[in-house]
Amino acid sequence: MISYRRRVHFEDVDAAGIVFFARYLNFCHEAMENFFADVQGGYAGMVTERRIGLPAVHIEIDYTHPLRYGNAVDIETDVTHIGRSSCTLRYRFIMADTRAPIAVIRHTCVVCELHGPTKIPIPADILAVLEANRATTEAETPTK
Amino acid sequence: MISYRRRVHFEDVDAAGIVFFARYLNFCHEAMENFFADVQGGYAGMVTERRIGLPAVHIEIDYTHPLRYGNAVDIETDVTHIGRSSCTLRYRFIMADTRAPIAVIRHTCVVCELHGPTKIPIPADILAVLEANRATTEAETPTK
Amino acid sequence: MISYRRRVHFEDVDAAGIVFFARYLNFCHEAMENFFADVQGGYAGMVTERRIGLPAVHIEIDYTHPLRYGNAVDIETDVTHIGRSSCTLRYRFIMADTRAPIAVIRHTCVVCELHGPTKIPIPADILAVLEANRATTEAETPTK
Amino acid sequence: MISYRRRVHFEDVDAAGIVFFARYLNFCHEAMENFFADVQGGYAGMVTERRIGLPAVHIEIDYTHPLRYGNAVDIETDVTHIGRSSCTLRYRFIMADTRAPIAVIRHTCVVCELHGPTKIPIPADILAVLEANRATTEAETPTK
Repeated sequence: MISYRRRVHFEDVDAAGIVFFARYLNFCHEAMENFFADVQGGYAGMVTERRIGLPAVHIEIDYTHPLRYGNAVDIETDVTHIGRSSCTLRYRFIMADTRAPIAVIRHTCVVCELHGPTKIPIPADILAVLEANRATTEAETPTK
Repeated sequence: MISYRRRVHFEDVDAAGIVFFARYLNFCHEAMENFFADVQGGYAGMVTERRIGLPAVHIEIDYTHPLRYGNAVDIETDVTHIGRSSCTLRYRFIMADTRAPIAVIRHTCVVCELHGPTKIPIPADILAVLEANRATTEAETPTK
Repeated sequence: MISYRRRVHFEDVDAAGIVFFARYLNFCHEAMENFFADVQGGYAGMVTERRIGLPAVHIEIDYTHPLRYGNAVDIETDVTHIGRSSCTLRYRFIMADTRAPIAVIRHTCVVCELHGPTKIPIPADILAVLEANRATTEAETPTK
Repeated sequence: MISYRRRVHFEDVDAAGIVFFARYLNFCHEAMENFFADVQGGYAGMVTERRIGLPAVHIEIDYTHPLRYGNAVDIETDVTHIGRSSCTLRYRFIMADTRAPIAVIRHTCVVCELHGPTKIPIPADILAVLEANRATTEAETPTK
């Protein structure tokens, strides 16, 4: 599991005064970029130099508690499924100060050539990060 | 079913050259604002004057085909579940020119007081829009 | 002058309850995409097929009146300068219902090859749109 | 001068492959939230508890060099003007690795009650941060 702390920015909030529901996926992608920081070239190098893409094929989000301006969340990322060309990442959003659960995102993506339709087997360095962070529990309650 | 056309904007595209996966929820919310255009005060009035919120509790997204700059999508919105204080909207994203399926979003939200935790029964005018747009098919293939 | 109507979306609002100051440039770019709708291939075709870019070199924004959720603005775009490889567009934001002035943006951009550093002379079809929409007044008060 | 490092995120890039011109203001606001971190309650507390707003009245941006995915920028913020109820912040964007200048933003805002039209004198703790970071040079070249 790799944890990433994200403060709520001024602009993340919507007309109802809470973080806009789409923003959870922006937070999620930042956590993903951080999750893959140690692959060759980092996530940015993976895309811009190695020309590997990880397009999403399926997303599920459970929202438990709203986020407001001034909050900070810890996004704990682990891996619930590894296939030949696909994987499922799980992001548990936890309030940084109270450890209250905020949301859980399940994100299935495929590994493919950046601009082509061709799936490729997961490269070894990416696989290593996935394997090292396999989920050890189905529990979605935060770590203490 | 209520249809909403959305062009891909210049900024919707990410570093991989396709519409960023979070943006589908931005598109979805625009379609939702349009879907509720005929309730008292419109969606904006519902939030700012009637102080009613529709926070999301669950989202599922299936991504079928990427979107690129220059594309336009038709977002066809209907309703697959109506409860006492909750409902599930379904958004089928369809390429405007070819009618190819792009994505499907299932969005469950609850009706509540804007800044309180209190769920409220769905108001009559909102219920009427939901009832008038019940899904008539489980099929997720686009309409012809 | 070409006018573009934009409603404030739910997510455009920030933690202070008004449209986030950066969003005016998102609105501005949408107005620009609309402004160049009639060039060969539209703005999207200009970028993706003709590989022409219009990167900004200078922006000035004067904010006069805040925008809130539920507002709609008319963005009136005209041209205050045309050079060999550059132009300055002016966007006057006007409240759709009251015609009150909201903001003015002055946007200088250069015409260049999409991924190269090379400026190019303004192509004829783009120049035609610019010439047809030269500012006829320095006045920044809204049209009646 | 207070410096804030911001990595370019995957989604910051637009259809032309560079950071979208509006995003510089998103980066700028994050730097501003960081700049005021030491006022009473931080920037978030200033808005949500003290109900003080800092709406922008004027922005100027000079773009010198594009940003791409994988880049990191240092945003050096100082203060070029302090009035009774207003101030001008200057943000110099500098490439983190090469120290090349990327952009300069000049941002004039007023201090006011959050939802009212009433300007207020700059509170003492906010003034102290501004005074402590007055620009010592007009030079816009990066610090070495």
